[in-house]
Amino acid sequence: MAVYTEIDDDALANLLAQYDIGDAVSCKGIAEGVENSNYLLATTRGQYIITLYEKRVKAADLPFFLGLMEHLAAKGLACPTPIHGRDGQALRDVAGRPAAIISFLQGVWPRRPNAQHCAGVGAALAQFHLLGADFPLRRANALSTSGWRALLASTVDRADEVRPGLAQDLARELDSLESAWPEFGQAKYVPAGVIHADLFPDNVFFLGDRISGIIDFYFACNDFLAYDLAIVLNAWCFEPTGEFNVTKARLLLQQYRAVRPLSDSEIHTLPLFCRGAALRFLLTRLHDWLHPAPGAMVKPKNPMEYLQKLNFHRAALGPGAYGLD
Amino acid sequence: MAVYTEIDDDALANLLAQYDIGDAVSCKGIAEGVENSNYLLATTRGQYIITLYEKRVKAADLPFFLGLMEHLAAKGLACPTPIHGRDGQALRDVAGRPAAIISFLQGVWPRRPNAQHCAGVGAALAQFHLLGADFPLRRANALSTSGWRALLASTVDRADEVRPGLAQDLARELDSLESAWPEFGQAKYVPAGVIHADLFPDNVFFLGDRISGIIDFYFACNDFLAYDLAIVLNAWCFEPTGEFNVTKARLLLQQYRAVRPLSDSEIHTLPLFCRGAALRFLLTRLHDWLHPAPGAMVKPKNPMEYLQKLNFHRAALGPGAYGLD
Repeated sequence: MAVYTEIDDDALANLLAQYDIGDAVSCKGIAEGVENSNYLLATTRGQYIITLYEKRVKAADLPFFLGLMEHLAAKGLACPTPIHGRDGQALRDVAGRPAAIISFLQGVWPRRPNAQHCAGVGAALAQFHLLGADFPLRRANALSTSGWRALLASTVDRADEVRPGLAQDLARELDSLESAWPEFGQAKYVPAGVIHADLFPDNVFFLGDRISGIIDFYFACNDFLAYDLAIVLNAWCFEPTGEFNVTKARLLLQQYRAVRPLSDSEIHTLPLFCRGAALRFLLTRLHDWLHPAPGAMVKPKNPMEYLQKLNFHRAALGPGAYGLD
Repeated sequence: MAVYTEIDDDALANLLAQYDIGDAVSCKGIAEGVENSNYLLATTRGQYIITLYEKRVKAADLPFFLGLMEHLAAKGLACPTPIHGRDGQALRDVAGRPAAIISFLQGVWPRRPNAQHCAGVGAALAQFHLLGADFPLRRANALSTSGWRALLASTVDRADEVRPGLAQDLARELDSLESAWPEFGQAKYVPAGVIHADLFPDNVFFLGDRISGIIDFYFACNDFLAYDLAIVLNAWCFEPTGEFNVTKARLLLQQYRAVRPLSDSEIHTLPLFCRGAALRFLLTRLHDWLHPAPGAMVKPKNPMEYLQKLNFHRAALGPGAYGLD
């Protein structure tokens, strides 16, 4: 939930004057996305999203994010696309923030993902990976192993406040993951490319059980494709009780593989990537829990949910635990 | 800014099944209103607002609020109206909260009200007062003088934390206002009826400089009509610098009087009502400042803005200070 920055009357009129999308008939701050301020804009022509990029998104990364969105939408992925102004530009300045107007995507995100939703997200992620293959820009994953090291350093001295022994547990886990993590030099061995990196249920819209599209490309980066799949398995296939639902995972992976086959190397690395993805969200949640952003108006998410997930992956006996044959 | 309660997939599907308004194509929590959770719902038929009434709104008052909205909309006031379900009911239960689906009102609320906006709100308020005259339900104003006494009691011991001497100042002000405040028994003397009681800029929508309608009837009640005008003068006619803009006030009052003439008694009581209205918002803001609601995700508004307004009214020399002849 966001809306940190107000758009005043003049700023809105001034913004719309730079586009050929009609006049505003309504503009409401929406409680979606935690990184940016988002407005749902209705004009005499249609509906749009205005996004103002707040400080957690680096301005230098915006051409990558907006370019990727446009690249994927043009290739047929169901996702929003930046609208270009009369000057040809998509990125501009509103209320002192970098900002863009994005096309509106119909659908509702699933509060309680079912097996059909999981199947849909599997296929959509595979399509994302295939269509992103020829996107020319690059962005390193700031939240891969080296980023985890920095997050651990910023949380280690207070991690035991959350759970006694957590600091040591996390330090050991990171050591093991770092030593086992594949290298990009061996890219033929484990395929890499553009990943979404944050495909949680609130970033995937459905109309009924049918996926209508995916949003929020602001963590997208270059990394191992199967690591993206591990993020999605963590986000979609655990029940609210904490149990892993292997039926959902099997369906998600089947639908992914029907669009983009997994290599043997990916199948064998998936359990490691699931551990890494669980550690990544455990560390960012722990960081936000211990250092809540002032005025963020967002309740930090409990990091312990991801410790439970990490423990599942540490106990898992190979790819079969995820429904992979 | 609100959205306290999530509507999950089943709850949304279940809700829409009770109406004849099409299927959901999008449903987003919106950052408007501080008392309730509001969702902007788009269906295959049109746009609607879903409001879930949180605990600050009493369930027993909802028939008054929803009935008033419907009464005024039916009589031609530009305002939302509750949508009735297949069972004829407008009020039902969603996610454990009383809830209603309301029609969507186009427009944008003015972040920086100009003189044209003030003129528009003056006329709209007068129309509200005229059209509300034959609304049959009654609701006492919980935030009139007796309510101020209770608010003062809950803030007096800590008021001086905000400004030294404030507690004594407020106690004396309330004593004076109580002794001068008109009685309802003399209703012929100062006209009373249904008032909006919270017609701030974020509750009035415009398309360009033309008013498109008014929203948020959840403080509406029976009270002196000119007291409602005093609330509006406080909310619309002070500049961000704290200065009273008599040009805006004159225009607002002119447009009000063009629709509903003011009696002599109302003209003479207006300065007193302006003091009372300033004290009312000063006290509620002070209360919220000293006792912020946990998890409200709303930054309390600075109460001192209303002390400045109160001081203007205490120094004002009669109706002429407001542009009244």
